[in-house]
Amino acid sequence: MRRFECDYATGAHPKVMEALIKTNLEACPGYGEDEHCAHAAQLIRQACQAPQADVHFLVGGTQTNLTIIAAALRPHQGVISTAMGHINDHETGAVEATGHKVLAVPSEDGKLTAAQVEQVCHSHYTDPTMEHKVQPGMVYLSNPTEMGTVYTLSELEAISEAAHKYHIPLFLDGARIAYGLAASDITLPDLARLCDVFYLGGTKAGALFGEAVVITNEALKSDFRYLIKQRGGMLAKGRLLGVQFEALMEDGLYQEIGKKAVAQAMRLQKAFLDKGYPLLIASPTNQQFPILPDKDLEQLSKNYSSCWWCKTDEDHTAVRFCVAWSTTDEDIDALIADIQAL
Amino acid sequence: MRRFECDYATGAHPKVMEALIKTNLEACPGYGEDEHCAHAAQLIRQACQAPQADVHFLVGGTQTNLTIIAAALRPHQGVISTAMGHINDHETGAVEATGHKVLAVPSEDGKLTAAQVEQVCHSHYTDPTMEHKVQPGMVYLSNPTEMGTVYTLSELEAISEAAHKYHIPLFLDGARIAYGLAASDITLPDLARLCDVFYLGGTKAGALFGEAVVITNEALKSDFRYLIKQRGGMLAKGRLLGVQFEALMEDGLYQEIGKKAVAQAMRLQKAFLDKGYPLLIASPTNQQFPILPDKDLEQLSKNYSSCWWCKTDEDHTAVRFCVAWSTTDEDIDALIADIQAL
Amino acid sequence: MRRFECDYATGAHPKVMEALIKTNLEACPGYGEDEHCAHAAQLIRQACQAPQADVHFLVGGTQTNLTIIAAALRPHQGVISTAMGHINDHETGAVEATGHKVLAVPSEDGKLTAAQVEQVCHSHYTDPTMEHKVQPGMVYLSNPTEMGTVYTLSELEAISEAAHKYHIPLFLDGARIAYGLAASDITLPDLARLCDVFYLGGTKAGALFGEAVVITNEALKSDFRYLIKQRGGMLAKGRLLGVQFEALMEDGLYQEIGKKAVAQAMRLQKAFLDKGYPLLIASPTNQQFPILPDKDLEQLSKNYSSCWWCKTDEDHTAVRFCVAWSTTDEDIDALIADIQAL
Amino acid sequence: MRRFECDYATGAHPKVMEALIKTNLEACPGYGEDEHCAHAAQLIRQACQAPQADVHFLVGGTQTNLTIIAAALRPHQGVISTAMGHINDHETGAVEATGHKVLAVPSEDGKLTAAQVEQVCHSHYTDPTMEHKVQPGMVYLSNPTEMGTVYTLSELEAISEAAHKYHIPLFLDGARIAYGLAASDITLPDLARLCDVFYLGGTKAGALFGEAVVITNEALKSDFRYLIKQRGGMLAKGRLLGVQFEALMEDGLYQEIGKKAVAQAMRLQKAFLDKGYPLLIASPTNQQFPILPDKDLEQLSKNYSSCWWCKTDEDHTAVRFCVAWSTTDEDIDALIADIQAL
Repeated sequence: MRRFECDYATGAHPKVMEALIKTNLEACPGYGEDEHCAHAAQLIRQACQAPQADVHFLVGGTQTNLTIIAAALRPHQGVISTAMGHINDHETGAVEATGHKVLAVPSEDGKLTAAQVEQVCHSHYTDPTMEHKVQPGMVYLSNPTEMGTVYTLSELEAISEAAHKYHIPLFLDGARIAYGLAASDITLPDLARLCDVFYLGGTKAGALFGEAVVITNEALKSDFRYLIKQRGGMLAKGRLLGVQFEALMEDGLYQEIGKKAVAQAMRLQKAFLDKGYPLLIASPTNQQFPILPDKDLEQLSKNYSSCWWCKTDEDHTAVRFCVAWSTTDEDIDALIADIQAL
Repeated sequence: MRRFECDYATGAHPKVMEALIKTNLEACPGYGEDEHCAHAAQLIRQACQAPQADVHFLVGGTQTNLTIIAAALRPHQGVISTAMGHINDHETGAVEATGHKVLAVPSEDGKLTAAQVEQVCHSHYTDPTMEHKVQPGMVYLSNPTEMGTVYTLSELEAISEAAHKYHIPLFLDGARIAYGLAASDITLPDLARLCDVFYLGGTKAGALFGEAVVITNEALKSDFRYLIKQRGGMLAKGRLLGVQFEALMEDGLYQEIGKKAVAQAMRLQKAFLDKGYPLLIASPTNQQFPILPDKDLEQLSKNYSSCWWCKTDEDHTAVRFCVAWSTTDEDIDALIADIQAL
Repeated sequence: MRRFECDYATGAHPKVMEALIKTNLEACPGYGEDEHCAHAAQLIRQACQAPQADVHFLVGGTQTNLTIIAAALRPHQGVISTAMGHINDHETGAVEATGHKVLAVPSEDGKLTAAQVEQVCHSHYTDPTMEHKVQPGMVYLSNPTEMGTVYTLSELEAISEAAHKYHIPLFLDGARIAYGLAASDITLPDLARLCDVFYLGGTKAGALFGEAVVITNEALKSDFRYLIKQRGGMLAKGRLLGVQFEALMEDGLYQEIGKKAVAQAMRLQKAFLDKGYPLLIASPTNQQFPILPDKDLEQLSKNYSSCWWCKTDEDHTAVRFCVAWSTTDEDIDALIADIQAL
Repeated sequence: MRRFECDYATGAHPKVMEALIKTNLEACPGYGEDEHCAHAAQLIRQACQAPQADVHFLVGGTQTNLTIIAAALRPHQGVISTAMGHINDHETGAVEATGHKVLAVPSEDGKLTAAQVEQVCHSHYTDPTMEHKVQPGMVYLSNPTEMGTVYTLSELEAISEAAHKYHIPLFLDGARIAYGLAASDITLPDLARLCDVFYLGGTKAGALFGEAVVITNEALKSDFRYLIKQRGGMLAKGRLLGVQFEALMEDGLYQEIGKKAVAQAMRLQKAFLDKGYPLLIASPTNQQFPILPDKDLEQLSKNYSSCWWCKTDEDHTAVRFCVAWSTTDEDIDALIADIQAL
C-alpha cells in the first residue's frame, strides 16, 4: 500500500531526525528558552526579513490557532473565517471554547475575499444594534486553504488592507505554507509585511510536530508566552521545537520540501486530467482532489490510500490525494502508471 | 557543568529514541488511532490490571490537567487541590481559563489529606448559602507532589474514600509517578483501583514528551477524544506518543528509570545529611531540597546547576537538585565528592 | 407619537404594577426563596400541567438563554439554532462566551425544521472525523420566532422527536410565547410535554422584566440555581419576579395579554394588505412586517414609530410594527385610519 | 417579626417606587438608551465631579462584578481580592467562569491593604517563572467590606497608588457604598479620582435593583455596552434603572438613606456594647456583628430575625443585624429595649 491520504502519516524528514538524535543528550533549559529555539527564531526572522518579529514555537495547529485568537480578541469579539476554515469546521469548537464566535462566511474554493472582510465589518459598524452582535476582531485565513487553493499576492494585499482599514489584525494559518510558497507568488517577507501574525507549519512539512508563530504586530506580542502556557502549548522540552526548525530553516530545507511535493502533485494532477478525470477544484499544491468513477477508485484503492471527500454523483466520488515530504518519485510513478492503466 | 536543575533537560532515553528512529518512516493513521497507540494502551492496561480502562495520550502536563478537569466538571464546580498544587500555582490559570475555580487548601509538605477533602465537602454541603459558592466537583493531587513527597497507600485510600463519599472523582497527576512508584508502597493497580482518572508521566521519565491518561471511571470516559481535540492536545502524528510509551512500558523500562533515579537521589540526600546540611523537606523521590550555606552553594554552582527554591535565612538557601533518567552514576559521584569537599 | 417599534417600550401592566406596589414593604427572604416565587411557580406548574417541573425566575432573555445552554452542554457540545435565532444573531456571542458553538442552520421564515435537526445530527454521527467537530448537544428554537412566525403543534412534535432520537434536549425560548399561545394550536401543556426546558417571557408580555424557566427534564434540573447565581442572573430581591408572575398567571392575565395584542395585530395586518402593501412574511403574532413605499413610510413615521428591518428594493422598505400589552385600540384605530389615508 | 437579617428584604424606597409608577406608561427606547438613564448618568457624574466618566446601569452585583472584570482583563490575568471578597467567596465562581483566577489574599477584617497589592505584584514580577503564574491584572475591593468595615481615604489612596504603580486598574465594588459614604471620610469624588471603575449600589440602598457603574479610566470604557449585553446584564426596559437612580440621586436621597441607616446601626451597636456583648468586628456601617450568648440569641430571635454568622465558642454565636432603608426608628427602639431587657 502506498499512502496518499494525508500529509502527516510518516515521521520526520531525515535531516530533522538527525538533528534530534544529535542533540538528544544535550541538557537545555526548558519551555523554549534554549539556544536552539533562539537560533531557529533567528533563522525564521531572517527568512521573513522581519528582524523585529517575535517567534514562538508550539506543538500543533489547533493549539496554535486557539492560543493566537484568544490572545488577540477581547471577549465581545469574534474572528472572521470562511465556513470551511479549519477553526470553524475541524477543531471541535476550540475557538468557541475560549469564548469567541467564529464569524463564518461562505466560500466555494476555501478562500476568503477582501470584499467579504469589508462586508462583515461594514455591516457591523453600520448596524444600529451592533452592540447586540459579535464585533469582528480578527481575520483568519489559511494558505493554502483546506481545498489546497492559494492566495495570490494581490489577493492577500487586499485582505490585509481591508482588515487594517477596520483596525483588526490579519492572522494567517500556515500549517501548509511550505506548499503554498512553492505554488504562489507570495514569499515569507510578504507574509511578515501583510499579516499581523502567522505561522510556518512544521507538522505537515517534515517535522515530527511543531508550528512556528511569527508575530509582527507590536500589540499582539505582549505576554504571549503566558498565553502559550495557559492553553497548554508550552512544551517542557521546548528545544525539540527549536532543533527541528533549525533543521528545516537551514539550507532552505523547508522550501525544498514544499517545492518537491508540489512538483510531484502537479505530475499527479496532470495524470488525472490526461485520463479525463475532472478535478473537484484546481489545487496548485500538495493536495489533489480528482473526481473518479467509483469502479476506478475501487481498483486504485487496492494499492493506494486516499481520503474520501464527497460523492459528486451516483457513480463518482471526489477523493483527496496528498503528497508529503516522504512521498518518493517511485510512489508517484507507480500511481501514475496505475491511473493510466485504469 | 553537570545539570541537576530539572528532570526535563535532556531528550529521550536511548530505547525511546531508538523506537522513534525505527518507526520514523511508517505511514500511520493520525490523531492517535494507530497500532502503536493501541499497543501502548494495552500495555498500560495490563500494567494497571485495569482491562476496562480507557487510555489516551497527550503531549504535556498542563494540557492534560486542563483537559481532564474541564471534561469532568459542570460549570459551577471546582477542583480541590493544595495551594501549591501545580494546577493552582504553576499553570498560568489554565483551569480557570476553562471556567473552573481551584478550591485551594493549605499544605506544608505538598500533600492533600482525606480530612481536607472531607472538610471542604462537608462545609460546602452544610452551608445554607451553598448555591452562592463553588461546588467541589473533583479532587486533584499529584504524586509525587511538587515537594517530592509521596502518598502512602493508606493515605491514598483515605482520600479516595473521602472523595467517593461525596460522589466526586479523584484525579491523580502522575507527571513524576515513575519516581513515586519507586519510593512508596503504591502500585499502578492501586492507582487504577483508587483513582477515577490518573496519568503516567512520560516527559519527566524518559520520553521526549507525552502523558498517558488512564480513565477507569465509566462516567468520565464519554467523548474524551472530542475534549482532547478541542483543547489542542490531539497530536497529528499521534503515533509518536504510542511509540514512546511502547518503549517505556515494555520490559519494565518505566519502572527501571524510576528506581535508578530514586536510588541516585537517596545517595545524594545522604551526602547532604552527612555533610550536616538539613533538608527543606524529606523527599524520598528524585527531587532533593537541601538547605545550603550560601557560600557553599556558590562554590557548588560552578560545576553543578540546581534550581533556586527559597531563602531560609540570611545566609542559607534551599535549592532543588533533580535526578533524571539521564543522570549518570559519574554525575552523582562527582557531586557527592564535591559536597564532601566543601 | 404612537410607538410601535418594539414590545418592551412601556412599563408593567397595571395589575402587575399594582402587585408590586402592594407587596413593596413586605420583608422577604432573598434570591427567589420567598413565598411569591413559590406561589408563582405553582401557578405555572398548574398552567403547564407539569406538577414535577422545576420553575426558576430570571431577569432577562439573554441571561436566561446563556444560563440554560451552559447548564446543559458539555464543553464539546453546541446548540442547534437557525442562523437568525436570537442566540446566534443578537446576543453578542453570549453562548460562545460560555464556551459553546451555535450550530447555525439557514431559515427563510425563522423556523427550524425537524429535518434540519435530523440532518445536523445524522451528518455529525456519520462523519468519521466527528471528534474534530462540535457535537450537537441541544436544540434551540424560539416560538414565536424573530420573524413573528409560529410553530404548529405537529411541527413542534416532529422537532421534539428528532431531538430525542439523538438524546439531546429541546429548549424553547418563549420570550414572546404569550403571543404564540394566542396564534397557534400549541398550549402550555404541549410545551411541557414536548420540550425539556422552556420559558415564559414576562418582559415582552406585561412585566417590568422577568422570564420564567420551566424544566421538565430531570437531567437538566440538577443544581440549576448554582448556575443562575454564577451567571449573574439571581436577583437579590427575587420576590419581584414571583410577584409579577403571580399577577400574570392569576386569572389568565398572561393569556389575555397575548390574545388582545394578536387581535390588534391582525387588524393592522389586514389594513396593510387592504391597502395593497405586501408583507415581508405572514406573521400571525404581535410583530407585523409590511413592505411600504418609502414615501408612505416617511409620511407614516411622522406619527408612528416602527423598526427598520430591511430595504426590499430601491423604493420600498420592510419595517416592523409591534403591538404590546400597552397598545390601545385607539392606537390601532389611528394607525389604520392613517394607513387608509396614505 | 421585625427583620434584620439582610438589607435587601423589602422593596423600593417610596420615592423610587413613586418614580416607577409615574413613568410606567412612558414609551422609551430599550436597553438603557433612554432619557432617564441619560439623566441619571448625568446626576451621577455631577455627584462624582467626574464629567468625563462613563456611567452604565446593570441589574445586580454579581453580574456587575463579572462584567467589569471580564471586560478589563486579558486571559492570563487575574484579579487581586481578599479571600473573603464577594467575588472570591459568594458568587459561585462567576469570575472563574469568565476564565480568570481570583488572586486571593488573607484578611482579618475584610480589608485589603496597599502592602498586599504591592506584595502580590512584586512577587509576581520578580519570579523567574512568572509566565507560569497568573498575572495580577486588576485590584478588587468592596467598600464597605463583607464585614461592614470601611477604608479610610488614606488607605484607599495607598491602594490606588500601589495598583497604578503596577499599571493595573483599581475596581471598587460599592454595593453598600451608600453606607460607606456615611461612615468614612471618603466622598464620591474621591472614588472617581482614585478608582478606575466603581459602582454605586442601588439594590441595598433603596432601589428594587440596580447598580450604577462609573468608569473613569479611558482604557476601560471601550465597547463596554457590548460586554453588558454579552453577559446578560442589559435590561430590555433599561429605563427602569435610569428612573430609579434619578430618584436616588436627586435631592441627596441616596446619601440620606445611608446616613439614616448608619445612625440607626450605631444606636444598635451601642446597645449591644452597653449590654456587655462584644462585637465580632467593629463595623461603623449598617451591618453589625454582635456576639451573643446562645440563650439570649434564642430569646431575641422570637421577634427579630438576624443572620447566623459563626460560633465563637460553645455558648456564644456571632450574628449579623442589618439595618436597611426600610428600618424604622420603631424597629430600632423595640430591638434596643429587648436587648436591654435580656
